Amino acid sequence: MKYCAECGHAVEQKVPAGDHLLRYVCPDCGTVHYQNPKIVAGCVPEYQGRILLCRRAIEPRHGYWTIPAGFMENGETTQEAARRESLEEACAHVEIGSLLAVVHVLHADQVHVMFRAALPKPEFAAGAESLEVMLCDEADVPWQDIAFRSVDFALRRYFDDRGRNVDAHHFTTIDLRRRT
Amino acid sequence: MKYCAECGHAVEQKVPAGDHLLRYVCPDCGTVHYQNPKIVAGCVPEYQGRILLCRRAIEPRHGYWTIPAGFMENGETTQEAARRESLEEACAHVEIGSLLAVVHVLHADQVHVMFRAALPKPEFAAGAESLEVMLCDEADVPWQDIAFRSVDFALRRYFDDRGRNVDAHHFTTIDLRRRT
Repeated sequence: MKYCAECGHAVEQKVPAGDHLLRYVCPDCGTVHYQNPKIVAGCVPEYQGRILLCRRAIEPRHGYWTIPAGFMENGETTQEAARRESLEEACAHVEIGSLLAVVHVLHADQVHVMFRAALPKPEFAAGAESLEVMLCDEADVPWQDIAFRSVDFALRRYFDDRGRNVDAHHFTTIDLRRRT
Repeated sequence: MKYCAECGHAVEQKVPAGDHLLRYVCPDCGTVHYQNPKIVAGCVPEYQGRILLCRRAIEPRHGYWTIPAGFMENGETTQEAARRESLEEACAHVEIGSLLAVVHVLHADQVHVMFRAALPKPEFAAGAESLEVMLCDEADVPWQDIAFRSVDFALRRYFDDRGRNVDAHHFTTIDLRRRT
């Protein structure tokens, strides 16, 4: 951020009175521009034991496999966002189920919220952001070519829980800045 | 948003190519300024059966009761945010527990994420944003003076689950725009 979104004046970084973090502040109109994590919502759609994966047609991670997921919009719920992304990326009408994973992706200032989902019919196709979409058995998941660590985490928890016949949810944190 | 944060030019609203929603777009540098929901993280701290409530010293809802909660910052997890807010608003060192509630507050473009928490010692005080802080039995909760519907929802689920000795999590949506 270089300019104030309210008045167009160049912003500066300072700690506002009563605050404890550096913020972008406009010295002209006084507006403090807070920056907060964005939510990415997604799901693992399942049809008769197989899950739906999408091969990315966009960067980052072009050509790698992921689940339907994307930035949550204002005016929708996390479940609605996950359903919308399934339609946009995989042309798939899914029914969102239980909470699967919450992944704090600290280096990207994102929180990934993933759900289980049902794909009632085996109807899908590559959306504008996908090269191809497939239904995939657990044994055939391309683990070496999964696009994001958060998706790897969600998929492993998904199959592990399914094997134990439980519907748990799982928190984790990924921080590539700290190299942990 | 009136001006481009990248170049200072006046922005306009349009649907970018390949998109389907109105965005603030800079006609000069081309930057698309997406706007997404913000996460509010909070918790219900409990000490020997009583819960910690804070009376708000700030707007909105000055003078009404709430749980420690506030906007999640970049670089922290939802649990860390809830713990930090407890320290800031109630001078309380809490231990965050299980997920209690996820409330989509559509009219405010917020997602409230609330956890159970333990307050190991009965040590607390009003932080800068609180008029007073109290430990409170279930029977003494000031239900008529709870600041926000999301907090009312979280507290009711909290006591209900505690009464049944379960640690469930609960999703709901509040949308004052739709009057539902």
